[in-house]
Amino acid sequence: MTGDASDAERFVEIDDPDDPRIEAYRAIRERDLVGRDESFIAEGAVVLDVLLRLSRFRPQSLLVAENRKDAALTLLAETGTACPVYVASKPVLDAIAGFNIHRGLLAHGHRGPLPDWQSLVPPPDRPALLVVLVGLANHDNVGGVFRNAAAFGADAVLIDSTTCDPLYRKAIRVSVGGSLTVPFARFSDIGALCAHLDDAAVTSLGLATSGSEELAHLVPPQRAAVFLGAEGPGLPDRLLSRIRTVRIPMAANFDSLNVATTAGIALHHLRSAPVRPAQ
Amino acid sequence: MTGDASDAERFVEIDDPDDPRIEAYRAIRERDLVGRDESFIAEGAVVLDVLLRLSRFRPQSLLVAENRKDAALTLLAETGTACPVYVASKPVLDAIAGFNIHRGLLAHGHRGPLPDWQSLVPPPDRPALLVVLVGLANHDNVGGVFRNAAAFGADAVLIDSTTCDPLYRKAIRVSVGGSLTVPFARFSDIGALCAHLDDAAVTSLGLATSGSEELAHLVPPQRAAVFLGAEGPGLPDRLLSRIRTVRIPMAANFDSLNVATTAGIALHHLRSAPVRPAQ
Repeated sequence: MTGDASDAERFVEIDDPDDPRIEAYRAIRERDLVGRDESFIAEGAVVLDVLLRLSRFRPQSLLVAENRKDAALTLLAETGTACPVYVASKPVLDAIAGFNIHRGLLAHGHRGPLPDWQSLVPPPDRPALLVVLVGLANHDNVGGVFRNAAAFGADAVLIDSTTCDPLYRKAIRVSVGGSLTVPFARFSDIGALCAHLDDAAVTSLGLATSGSEELAHLVPPQRAAVFLGAEGPGLPDRLLSRIRTVRIPMAANFDSLNVATTAGIALHHLRSAPVRPAQ
Repeated sequence: MTGDASDAERFVEIDDPDDPRIEAYRAIRERDLVGRDESFIAEGAVVLDVLLRLSRFRPQSLLVAENRKDAALTLLAETGTACPVYVASKPVLDAIAGFNIHRGLLAHGHRGPLPDWQSLVPPPDRPALLVVLVGLANHDNVGGVFRNAAAFGADAVLIDSTTCDPLYRKAIRVSVGGSLTVPFARFSDIGALCAHLDDAAVTSLGLATSGSEELAHLVPPQRAAVFLGAEGPGLPDRLLSRIRTVRIPMAANFDSLNVATTAGIALHHLRSAPVRPAQ
């Protein structure tokens, strides 16, 4: 444990919900709905641990409940983080946020600029495992995909313009911080993306119930990109007609998998399946 | 389309939220919290389609919004279902349920008695794929497991006394009806369960981060039971010490998978992995 003096200096007591220093945490849900162009809010001990330990983001500040000061101190000490820590009583905290913050631990971070998607494709002499999301409008699903991308060590997630924000508060929470650690970028032209992946010797694999290859029999390519569409519509036909397509066999009367689960199954196979020798 | 007369007979207009005929639908959330020993509520077109077409349950009635009458008629006609259909305006529907029923389609069913878990183990001359849940207290996760169990055609899900109710409304919704189709039963003594599975030549496989075998290299047994514990605590040590244990390799700094995703990955492997010839 670090000395009392420096610990005490880190904490800034907040008594007034209107204090301008905690502006970033005010009316969290309303701000979530409007969208946060520049910043994000992360919550809970597990996610904050990922934020401070593993992510490419540095927090601007923390806002914690009185009874979580020790937890915050431990997090900061273990991760060598230096940032202001605002402390409020539970009623003040809830008044700031606009609802019951039962986890009692919040962090505010700056997003910074998104990288170019081209920069996230590993160089040709290295293995590559990418996830490409097309039209995923559900924050739980996007968060779930990032959790799996983090667990299976994907290099990056590339998302189209209609896929929702991986740094939305709920997406961060569902990802257990995965969307803070796995690099991501947006692309606007899926044709240009496919052409670039071809040129970069990355095999594009589209998951579809109509896929022509069975996932379990697929020999994992050294460099692969897994394309996933929304539950229901799936990936667009014009995309499926130009890339290799892969299916996961399911019960005839119940061919319904969650898209994050599909990502997990595909990433597990690509990461772990034994590469069979050439015939 | 069936005749107008019989269609008209099926519909019972409800104008009064206190009408005793729709008692089962009243104060849905409060009743969810208290628990429904005898009945369940299913909601939404996709889940009702599974309920009417595939499940082992028959609905006692439907309660639908005025603007969903056609959807209800189609469902009933396509599945040959005969049961009372109560129709209410949106305000009356919301007043009955106690919140905004935006899907506008509800069904009420009787659970009937749970089978003995022993009866759900397929006979020894048949393949078997079982899922065993230990301590899953989260309805989303239980629903997600049932969705995957349905998609991969598991024979049954056996749940311990601390795992939450698969017929809880949210669990049904997340399962996309899977918990209405996959048979399930509760067991009280996990030691007795393991002994029974041994006697029945079912291979018990415990998923654990410390598992001694890697899932991707596991040759799927003809008869298998996949044991899953809650995220965090996982399966109890005394269980893991007596069954085969299987791990899913993950990134060293992010070894965190959702338990329903874990179920999906394991079931996919057991269903689809090529059985390698003996050496």
